[in-house]
Amino acid sequence: MVHPKQPPEKGDRSPTGEDAAIQRIGMHLKSRFGGPPPGEIWSGDDAAVVSLPGVAGGHASLLLTTDAVVAGVHIDLAVVGLADVGWKALTVAISDIAAMGGTPAHALVAVGAPPGTDLDEIAAGIGEAAEHWCCPVVGGDLTSASEVMVSVAVTGSLEGPAHAVLRSGARPGDALYVTGRLGASAAGLRLLRDGPASVPALDETERAALELAHRRPRARLAEGLAAREAGATAMMDISDGLGIDLDRLVRASGVGFVLDEVPVAPGATPEEARSGGEDYELLIAAPDDGSLPDRFGVVGLRPPHRIGVCTADGGERRLGDGALEATGYEHRF
Amino acid sequence: MVHPKQPPEKGDRSPTGEDAAIQRIGMHLKSRFGGPPPGEIWSGDDAAVVSLPGVAGGHASLLLTTDAVVAGVHIDLAVVGLADVGWKALTVAISDIAAMGGTPAHALVAVGAPPGTDLDEIAAGIGEAAEHWCCPVVGGDLTSASEVMVSVAVTGSLEGPAHAVLRSGARPGDALYVTGRLGASAAGLRLLRDGPASVPALDETERAALELAHRRPRARLAEGLAAREAGATAMMDISDGLGIDLDRLVRASGVGFVLDEVPVAPGATPEEARSGGEDYELLIAAPDDGSLPDRFGVVGLRPPHRIGVCTADGGERRLGDGALEATGYEHRF
Repeated sequence: MVHPKQPPEKGDRSPTGEDAAIQRIGMHLKSRFGGPPPGEIWSGDDAAVVSLPGVAGGHASLLLTTDAVVAGVHIDLAVVGLADVGWKALTVAISDIAAMGGTPAHALVAVGAPPGTDLDEIAAGIGEAAEHWCCPVVGGDLTSASEVMVSVAVTGSLEGPAHAVLRSGARPGDALYVTGRLGASAAGLRLLRDGPASVPALDETERAALELAHRRPRARLAEGLAAREAGATAMMDISDGLGIDLDRLVRASGVGFVLDEVPVAPGATPEEARSGGEDYELLIAAPDDGSLPDRFGVVGLRPPHRIGVCTADGGERRLGDGALEATGYEHRF
Repeated sequence: MVHPKQPPEKGDRSPTGEDAAIQRIGMHLKSRFGGPPPGEIWSGDDAAVVSLPGVAGGHASLLLTTDAVVAGVHIDLAVVGLADVGWKALTVAISDIAAMGGTPAHALVAVGAPPGTDLDEIAAGIGEAAEHWCCPVVGGDLTSASEVMVSVAVTGSLEGPAHAVLRSGARPGDALYVTGRLGASAAGLRLLRDGPASVPALDETERAALELAHRRPRARLAEGLAAREAGATAMMDISDGLGIDLDRLVRASGVGFVLDEVPVAPGATPEEARSGGEDYELLIAAPDDGSLPDRFGVVGLRPPHRIGVCTADGGERRLGDGALEATGYEHRF
């Protein structure tokens, strides 16, 4: 069993890491087809963008994404329930659709579980999330396995004429935003494991919110849609930690960054905010003219946090007077 | 670890079985949305049929299906390789598309694996299958896990005007066909485990074919398409065994059956043919006027095996002078 939520291995982006493995495997798979046809995006972003099969000459696009949640790796069943596993598995896949500016359409769920597992509890959590995010589960598979794992695939659509917001479009001078304070999920896990004494400054309501942030992450669908409408140039969800995810975004875009601050969730440490991961807030690059916060205001969303700007130096990784390291959660292989 | 390929538990369709669990979970999930809109099929068939998101007023349908393959459950890594796991995971999902009469479009793959697993070998098998079945992998997820598991979601389309072929359309008097002799996968696994002495009647070429049937199953895409074109009334793929899968088809259709014979693959036992599973041949109900074999002949396919007929008595389960029990592989929970 892999230890849940291993401490991030700082600055280490070795060939055994997740990104390296994904890139290598992606090459394997793409090379057989000579890469995607024009207008399609295959692996490398939050979701794939493909043309709709069977729609001749149409401009309609389909978003496709998949995520797997494994007990003992993504979820510590000692402190969260099976319904939370179900909720989380669906929500993190829907978060990938949000990160393209899309709207989820349908979900498929494959569940693996040892004999004796309360499948109804997993299904209840999946069902709550499906209803909450308006994304019906239309099919699935159920199999024996030695540990609980829930794998979800979600389709999505793009409303209106604008394209999906990729990771690769940020330009020097663009402002960088996050849709909420960070570190809440990591701090929530700490609270669930170590008890209230680990977050002495928080009252009961705040502690409950922190636990919920870990157990029941949110997909920022309205924010993703608003960002696309406001002309965001790049977007992704923060699943593995701001450090590692921002590194991915600026590498894809060929820019650097200078951050003024990283907004820290109540109860979280600055380290948790920088590299805790699993907050599923959106990281957005947009023209620095106020259009993004304006749009968020118009549609009634919490204002986004402006955390810094993109710069022309692709090697720049500045946070205040120091550096933001590309740390966060990477699976090891 | 679940023992690979447990002997089927005969006649036992208990509430802890796979079908019961799937039905219960399906109710959980469907009830929140009041069931599918008109024209859509959600869980309960080989694949879901949904309207294409974002295509207003169109009749275009999207097929969606997911399957998970878990080492130690579906695959015995002592006798087959990681590339076979990859091939099989993609192929069995594509087989679900074949069983609707559809054409695969895009695949998503989630891989879980312990540290040290040769991910490139898994990817090579996935890539070979993707190329073979013309179904590019456009996205994926990679995660640590304590055992190797590959979860695949596939989208598909329906060419031409005809509808998807469901499990539920068989009528009394329809002929029942299978697209090939059965039991080859189970016999191939036996050969791989017990050696050539376990299949004394076969020569080296036949043994190689039998091993391949287990390691590299085929998706019967051309057969599924031809069956739909020929007016097949019901269809599914034989994944868990003819006994259990035919029981599922006739239950869905509200008919019974009388079988003359079950065609047995060279080297397989009659028991393996009846309940071995994993052959992924298609089971088809069609008007008993020869139109299905005619169509197969026109498009150059091997003739299907006519195994019997559907009857009006929903309780009838006859094979020759005896009964065909609803046995096959069911996951236990």
